[in-house]
Amino acid sequence: MTDPQVLSFRPEAGQFAWTFGGAAPVATITPGTILELWTEDCFAGRVRGPSDLVSQVCEFPYLNPQTGPFYVAGAAPGDTLAVHFISVEPARSWGASTTAPLFGALTSTHLTATLQDPLPEVVWIWELDRAARLCRFQARDSDLSADLPLNPMHGTVGVAPANLEVRSALVPDAFGGNMDTPEMRAGVTCYLGVNVPGALLSIGDGHARQGEGETCGVAVECAMDTVIVVDVLKDLVTPWPRLESDTHIMSAGSARPLEDAFRIAQLDLVRWAAEHTGMSELDAYQFVSQAVEAPLANVVDTNYTSIAMLRKDWLPGTARPLMRGMHEHLREIARQYRGT
Amino acid sequence: MTDPQVLSFRPEAGQFAWTFGGAAPVATITPGTILELWTEDCFAGRVRGPSDLVSQVCEFPYLNPQTGPFYVAGAAPGDTLAVHFISVEPARSWGASTTAPLFGALTSTHLTATLQDPLPEVVWIWELDRAARLCRFQARDSDLSADLPLNPMHGTVGVAPANLEVRSALVPDAFGGNMDTPEMRAGVTCYLGVNVPGALLSIGDGHARQGEGETCGVAVECAMDTVIVVDVLKDLVTPWPRLESDTHIMSAGSARPLEDAFRIAQLDLVRWAAEHTGMSELDAYQFVSQAVEAPLANVVDTNYTSIAMLRKDWLPGTARPLMRGMHEHLREIARQYRGT
Amino acid sequence: MTDPQVLSFRPEAGQFAWTFGGAAPVATITPGTILELWTEDCFAGRVRGPSDLVSQVCEFPYLNPQTGPFYVAGAAPGDTLAVHFISVEPARSWGASTTAPLFGALTSTHLTATLQDPLPEVVWIWELDRAARLCRFQARDSDLSADLPLNPMHGTVGVAPANLEVRSALVPDAFGGNMDTPEMRAGVTCYLGVNVPGALLSIGDGHARQGEGETCGVAVECAMDTVIVVDVLKDLVTPWPRLESDTHIMSAGSARPLEDAFRIAQLDLVRWAAEHTGMSELDAYQFVSQAVEAPLANVVDTNYTSIAMLRKDWLPGTARPLMRGMHEHLREIARQYRGT
Amino acid sequence: MTDPQVLSFRPEAGQFAWTFGGAAPVATITPGTILELWTEDCFAGRVRGPSDLVSQVCEFPYLNPQTGPFYVAGAAPGDTLAVHFISVEPARSWGASTTAPLFGALTSTHLTATLQDPLPEVVWIWELDRAARLCRFQARDSDLSADLPLNPMHGTVGVAPANLEVRSALVPDAFGGNMDTPEMRAGVTCYLGVNVPGALLSIGDGHARQGEGETCGVAVECAMDTVIVVDVLKDLVTPWPRLESDTHIMSAGSARPLEDAFRIAQLDLVRWAAEHTGMSELDAYQFVSQAVEAPLANVVDTNYTSIAMLRKDWLPGTARPLMRGMHEHLREIARQYRGT
Repeated sequence: MTDPQVLSFRPEAGQFAWTFGGAAPVATITPGTILELWTEDCFAGRVRGPSDLVSQVCEFPYLNPQTGPFYVAGAAPGDTLAVHFISVEPARSWGASTTAPLFGALTSTHLTATLQDPLPEVVWIWELDRAARLCRFQARDSDLSADLPLNPMHGTVGVAPANLEVRSALVPDAFGGNMDTPEMRAGVTCYLGVNVPGALLSIGDGHARQGEGETCGVAVECAMDTVIVVDVLKDLVTPWPRLESDTHIMSAGSARPLEDAFRIAQLDLVRWAAEHTGMSELDAYQFVSQAVEAPLANVVDTNYTSIAMLRKDWLPGTARPLMRGMHEHLREIARQYRGT
Repeated sequence: MTDPQVLSFRPEAGQFAWTFGGAAPVATITPGTILELWTEDCFAGRVRGPSDLVSQVCEFPYLNPQTGPFYVAGAAPGDTLAVHFISVEPARSWGASTTAPLFGALTSTHLTATLQDPLPEVVWIWELDRAARLCRFQARDSDLSADLPLNPMHGTVGVAPANLEVRSALVPDAFGGNMDTPEMRAGVTCYLGVNVPGALLSIGDGHARQGEGETCGVAVECAMDTVIVVDVLKDLVTPWPRLESDTHIMSAGSARPLEDAFRIAQLDLVRWAAEHTGMSELDAYQFVSQAVEAPLANVVDTNYTSIAMLRKDWLPGTARPLMRGMHEHLREIARQYRGT
Repeated sequence: MTDPQVLSFRPEAGQFAWTFGGAAPVATITPGTILELWTEDCFAGRVRGPSDLVSQVCEFPYLNPQTGPFYVAGAAPGDTLAVHFISVEPARSWGASTTAPLFGALTSTHLTATLQDPLPEVVWIWELDRAARLCRFQARDSDLSADLPLNPMHGTVGVAPANLEVRSALVPDAFGGNMDTPEMRAGVTCYLGVNVPGALLSIGDGHARQGEGETCGVAVECAMDTVIVVDVLKDLVTPWPRLESDTHIMSAGSARPLEDAFRIAQLDLVRWAAEHTGMSELDAYQFVSQAVEAPLANVVDTNYTSIAMLRKDWLPGTARPLMRGMHEHLREIARQYRGT
Repeated sequence: MTDPQVLSFRPEAGQFAWTFGGAAPVATITPGTILELWTEDCFAGRVRGPSDLVSQVCEFPYLNPQTGPFYVAGAAPGDTLAVHFISVEPARSWGASTTAPLFGALTSTHLTATLQDPLPEVVWIWELDRAARLCRFQARDSDLSADLPLNPMHGTVGVAPANLEVRSALVPDAFGGNMDTPEMRAGVTCYLGVNVPGALLSIGDGHARQGEGETCGVAVECAMDTVIVVDVLKDLVTPWPRLESDTHIMSAGSARPLEDAFRIAQLDLVRWAAEHTGMSELDAYQFVSQAVEAPLANVVDTNYTSIAMLRKDWLPGTARPLMRGMHEHLREIARQYRGT
């Protein structure tokens, strides 16, 4: 194994992408490249204190800035991109969360349209203690506060969509995008089907932590220093995003209504388990039905995202490597990188 | 504390309830009574081998037999019933799972109606090793097998519904019922709002284990020896089922589409957190959004069930007991019972 | 044809049914009987003026009173009940409509649960000019008014449910019930599958008129003088409610989400068209796809209801009578009745 | 009124647009221009006989070719484009319909994902008798046939989307697009909010006729000779597509689940009625609830589309022109054009 290439990239103002697809690449990389990236928060850094209301300080549609896209040399439609998160670390000592008018799960929205007034618009600034690995919640209407574990993750990682489309960076779908799952953390490999030459990978939307479902629509949003390593699995079709950690394989379905997101993720996991173990699809349906964990990712975005996850050590009877052993390979690169 | 009353009850054939509401009580108990119960599996014990297809051996609507109902003296509309699971143990050395025609998440159904043929009907018999705490999956179409941890739970626990209704034991709703959450295990207290005098509690649908979402519609179904203790919280309205473990508070929403089940559970948990801590609802909305776990329970039943759960030790600033300290009280009774 | 029996029935206070199933029959009738009925409005007659707010004057769950149930001698599970509406006439010179807290399509509800405040509760009294066949809308916040055509219908017609259940009269489902379709008007025959001996038919929820979807959740509610004739089709299974007018056949699906209600109605109509004409199901799928009308009934009740309707004179190649000619038979009885 | 400009445009092969947004304009027109257009069918003309299966002859994503886009000089974000259909006439003597794998309402799909096999793929060629205004259905599995009225319409009419997006021509959304409503016929004006300079209007997807809901996913697809006149309403925001005929105003909501499409359309119509008449929103909510017609458009596309329509002569108390009188103005231009 030769030393991987390392590219550091911190976007200038004006250099962010706001869409998946449709943006010119900021760089071309070869498979195996390590990217040291900086990502801005979903507010484009404009919500910095309690009086910075989204509806006043943000400029639509310039939300959820993406770092990228990166053109991955050799990646072509029909391949799968592998993105391994080596580290995800908050780049500031605070994160911001808010309510936003007609956005979130416990409010009517532009789609779940009602005649009611929107909820009040409020900002919460969370203090991040990176040494202690804590985020501090401070209530706005009382003196109550609480420390929750830091659990840094990326809400958004994706490639250019299929079907000639360009999608807002706020959208999760088959190309990945704004899935908002807390499982997208350091140590995890994300597999994304390639739809256009070069794949056009970008990431963003760092969260210091997020509950499952992202109920109010907004996590503890923060800029991130993130290191990833990117590789390509040639001639491997991945219809919906897959994740692999040291312990689990996971499928991510994004759709509305939420039961369709669930169906997509479960069907993909059933098929993954069947292909990997050699079980029939019906046997895999039974096995997954008893073994799966099904945490929600988001129930607030343009599409809702549901995760289906399975412990790798529960999978029966196989020594075959998962996804051609890519996760272990990238883990090894990560270890070497951290050792340097 | 005086010694609690203990009632053992094993229903005879013909003594099961098939509905919530509408069935005559099998016994009247006082608050604080310990019930040593036997529950039959959801197939009424008729699926015992690979050739016992549900469509042939089961007699509709006589599915999901309930042990009960128990009339709880003093329980009245406006109160809350507390049901603590002291132990849940498989009563047989095997469990059964199946596909059933037009039932499950990865098939069309009578409601998600299509012109396609149903999936094949297959039975899987899982061997339960109660000493080793394992369930053994044996594939039908290959020699593959796998051992999964035993994780016994009750799919169904409920009281008589409101609004003069009688519901099939297959239904989950505000009265509890067939919620099919793996969280309903030993050590957990379930809180259910009382809709009719005596509450009319029944339980059933034991699962040796179940994945989140119960994808194929059927868990590892088995008869159970279950011990519960039942108590009443007077003048406390509980609109949707709540659960409490030593570590978490949880709300269970049941509805279609699945996002409504999510909304119900999350809103109830937000309100629970607000009431308990004294936070405003908007502060609790923010706090829960970052702290909640959101595992699915079922995406196959008449209503889908979504769980919202929060670590108790993360709740800020309160020494107030949750639900008047009922969970700790029943835990203590459980300890005494097990000590006898 | 001998003269049909005629039974007049006007319920006393205390004689209404509030559920489908679970209520004792008010009378036993033979097939072919004409019923001259009076039905109270869905508010049990308690909303009589602008200050009669539902949340204050109505007593839950005593909403949507039903006239019946009638035990139809000879009707047994596996049969189909035919209910032909001879006439539906407002019994008062006014109708009432309202907003109700957390009920309706353009508000959050107990299921589509949000943190927002409910909409204001308002009552509109509509003047009914039965001679001119008009209902007069009078705005509450301005002097605007408008005359809309009287279009009397029954929101609710149903039989006892299957599966041992008892359902609130507010529920639409496979047993009929609170479908709230404007198609349920004089001249129409409604076919309902029989689930219990005697069928246990009841009707209620008269509307002077209603928009498709019943957007605010409440129509122009009024007491009705309604004449129906009831008959039985032996050994004919009708899984979901069907309607037949002189011009159309219609299927009614009730479920959530709304696309499932659509699927149910469309699949039933495809199968009805296939069985009736002898077309294959795929040919019927194609034919119905180009010929169907799909007005919504309600998007506010416990289940949403979608109608699929097809012009009878467009059906190809058959002289076979629809539903054994029952509609024409009952039309003839209606003509004779009106001639008397 | 000076004579309007008339532009005839028949796209060459290679000149079609396959997206809304992202395609270069084929021409720039001034407001008031009449466009004489030819549109290809949704199959790009490749399904011409019973053996032309979509999965074999069509080339994804090159489906639903659009004629356009046209850059409308002076149209800017914040304006509304008015597109009046002067005539819509089938350009061939036949239309094609099909089943397509995992597409349609009565099959599982890539989103409503199941383990079942897809339905068989079948093509139906409908003969169009343009003189007699009939389409002839010929069953594939029997000799049955039927004549249905010709009812030519455009499934797709739209402008470039907001939020920097490019969407497939198969998508209906706030920018219009593939709404698939039979109301989009000759004599109707469609209003679309402008999102980018020049609006970038295109149309396509002609249907000789279509049932409401487009159940099998495909109408009687045919090339069209269509004449439209295009104008601009300056400084008028139209959040969702609106239609106006001589008799009705209509709003079109597109979303999933279907109840959200319903909510969007109904809320828009309530607001339109309120603004136009001066009624309060709550009064308009009541009025629309009793007066609205709610036919479905499609329950098969990426988003489902629901129509809310209201008779213009039922609207109370106003002499104010609707949408500044644009529909009457364009009707007059159409009359002059036809008179020439």
